[in-house]
Amino acid sequence: MTTQQLTQQIKKKNSFLCIGLDVDLNKIPKHLLLDEDPIFAFNKAIIDATHHLCVAYKPNTAFYEAYGLKGWQSLEKTIHYLNKNHPEIFTIADAKRGDIGNTSSRYAKAFLEDLGFDSITVAPYMGKDSVEPFLAIKNKHTILLALTSNEGAFDFQTKFMDGKALYMHVLQTSKSWKHSENLMYVVGATKAEYLTEIRKIIPDSFLLVPGIGAQGGSLEEVCKYGMNANVGLLVNSSRGIIYASDKLDFAEAAAHQAKALQKQMQAILNY
Amino acid sequence: MTTQQLTQQIKKKNSFLCIGLDVDLNKIPKHLLLDEDPIFAFNKAIIDATHHLCVAYKPNTAFYEAYGLKGWQSLEKTIHYLNKNHPEIFTIADAKRGDIGNTSSRYAKAFLEDLGFDSITVAPYMGKDSVEPFLAIKNKHTILLALTSNEGAFDFQTKFMDGKALYMHVLQTSKSWKHSENLMYVVGATKAEYLTEIRKIIPDSFLLVPGIGAQGGSLEEVCKYGMNANVGLLVNSSRGIIYASDKLDFAEAAAHQAKALQKQMQAILNY
Repeated sequence: MTTQQLTQQIKKKNSFLCIGLDVDLNKIPKHLLLDEDPIFAFNKAIIDATHHLCVAYKPNTAFYEAYGLKGWQSLEKTIHYLNKNHPEIFTIADAKRGDIGNTSSRYAKAFLEDLGFDSITVAPYMGKDSVEPFLAIKNKHTILLALTSNEGAFDFQTKFMDGKALYMHVLQTSKSWKHSENLMYVVGATKAEYLTEIRKIIPDSFLLVPGIGAQGGSLEEVCKYGMNANVGLLVNSSRGIIYASDKLDFAEAAAHQAKALQKQMQAILNY
Repeated sequence: MTTQQLTQQIKKKNSFLCIGLDVDLNKIPKHLLLDEDPIFAFNKAIIDATHHLCVAYKPNTAFYEAYGLKGWQSLEKTIHYLNKNHPEIFTIADAKRGDIGNTSSRYAKAFLEDLGFDSITVAPYMGKDSVEPFLAIKNKHTILLALTSNEGAFDFQTKFMDGKALYMHVLQTSKSWKHSENLMYVVGATKAEYLTEIRKIIPDSFLLVPGIGAQGGSLEEVCKYGMNANVGLLVNSSRGIIYASDKLDFAEAAAHQAKALQKQMQAILNY
């Protein structure tokens, strides 16, 4: 999917919502545990109930790896279900990978080609040759960690070097990498006040914004400082949507929460 | 395994060699492709032929994820084989993970508890709360990326902030994290000249050193600047050992290469 197509979907659906599929068997409704594949059963129900309200889904790979082989199987089934039934949805493997070149190529192949995700999140610490193998894959997107939503972001990312914070160096430097047109960036909603500076460096790039809801970020602030002419935002909510209820009505409750966010987004888009 | 036990093994075997199990089906001997699980068959043969010459094995998870479900199955079989038959061997999941706290906990559980690795490599970009969930697991080790072996290390890791390079901040800051006694660090052999400065900050920690062989680092330089009273080094070789031959004699050829490195290590240890 191209960023133009993504923007079209956003305008069509009046939504730039991304739903995080971070499935924890301790939190899903008990009746699903009787299913042969409870994780996929949960994801399928959530997707069926919410796909018209969002433009992206983001499974975090840790939640699947935590269940070993079975978890990988559930991840495969989830991405195949999305690609088959909702090709208009943008898919994000939230994997935060990054390694030396020949190893990053492996990850790129696994997630973007074999599993068929539209994009993957990647950590910048190892620099250019750890990220370019992801960028090399056509019509796919690499979402580089810039300024993350957690408290630990202040340990290194916001530290200054040569007059600029590390995350600003990451933004600036990554623009010179081969196929940087395939880059998007992670900027946490809890750091909305940084978005003005960030937009000066990367005015046109899409941002994946986690951290509203459970982590305390504000949708209004993110949009005020981060939105560009093509919207340029994918705002993620995970726990606030998928765990809205742990009863039989969980999918309906998730849709209700997603709808509330979509309405706020619609109001902002049409302002 | 404790670091004391690891040092004992090093002294017993006169070796601080770590062998990287980065299995690529295009590079292994053709006859193994007939096996039901070629990756495990390859690893088992390499382990059987080399376990007396090394103290650690390090599968890089990217090479397994590249083969999807089957790859994960091979990884599980490999770590179970090692834990059952060679409990004296230190095992490293070279996964370079790191995420917000509740997600890092998932990765920690998956690799250190469920799969039963002794250690995992972790990226520092997201700071304290992304690493502490790994450190919290008793008798396990977190190997934090400090100064990596690749060219991209110069993009951010060696950039100065407040008079110190980023990788030095990572070393210094991580020492204040909870259970920092469970930390080890990745320092590339291609950056041996930095080891004197690194040892001033973390004199006692174990270092995992990739980058000799195919990547061009020197064992002598690494030992000259990086060794401490308890040795404190695990020097990794992957391709140089496991792909020494792609014929029927591959395991024997791998043992030959491992033996050559072990002999060099023995000479250094007994100098």
